[in-house]
Amino acid sequence: MSFYEKLKFTADGLIPAVVQEQSTGRVLMMAWMNRASLEKTIETGKTHFWSRSRQKFWMKGEESGHTQTVKDVAFDCDGDTLLIQVEQTGAACHEGYKSCFFRSVEGDGTSFETTEPQLKSPGDIYGKKK
Amino acid sequence: MSFYEKLKFTADGLIPAVVQEQSTGRVLMMAWMNRASLEKTIETGKTHFWSRSRQKFWMKGEESGHTQTVKDVAFDCDGDTLLIQVEQTGAACHEGYKSCFFRSVEGDGTSFETTEPQLKSPGDIYGKKK
Repeated sequence: MSFYEKLKFTADGLIPAVVQEQSTGRVLMMAWMNRASLEKTIETGKTHFWSRSRQKFWMKGEESGHTQTVKDVAFDCDGDTLLIQVEQTGAACHEGYKSCFFRSVEGDGTSFETTEPQLKSPGDIYGKKK
Repeated sequence: MSFYEKLKFTADGLIPAVVQEQSTGRVLMMAWMNRASLEKTIETGKTHFWSRSRQKFWMKGEESGHTQTVKDVAFDCDGDTLLIQVEQTGAACHEGYKSCFFRSVEGDGTSFETTEPQLKSPGDIYGKKK
């Protein structure tokens, strides 16, 4: 059976993709793919997504240079989520952090703290092209 | 500012939660939470989710005993995804694998392979109670 036949896309034709840095195990981000962006990801070895807010197909790092080289593509028991292992160039987060998950809940859950250093400012990442 | 004010739930009041085993870095599963299940997760230190298919609030492991003890709750830059670090008892996957992501794409992306051992059969996990 084909891998694609095991997947369940939403009514909008999308599937969430969790992206993990293979070398460190750090979960970097979660973004949405449609079938075309998943095929492009497997074909090129660079992650491609579908932006729901911009209704646009994009390659991660196309503006910032912070691309992701694909090492493995896994899917879950229900076929409705992908887990993609990558090597990350630079910061995965558009806010300049290695991971988009740079804040954690503190204590009773009402406050939060930043848990990792900001590697670059967003201006440093995107300033030259905007 | 409260942690909850940073979160963006979907129109259905849900937010995806990626669950990672803290000790190994293995991504175990992705499931959905509503605000009540997130509050319960933080309050009790055990993961609780909202089942979209069953329209039901549930504690992970309530039938199988395979509970998840919460070590950290992080959220991403857009506030629309959670990353929860846990200690996993037994298998996270209802199919008896440690992780729900037990299959990976092979070669050109049309076939796939199982990448980890099945720890238990679903019958062993749920058989006694069904």
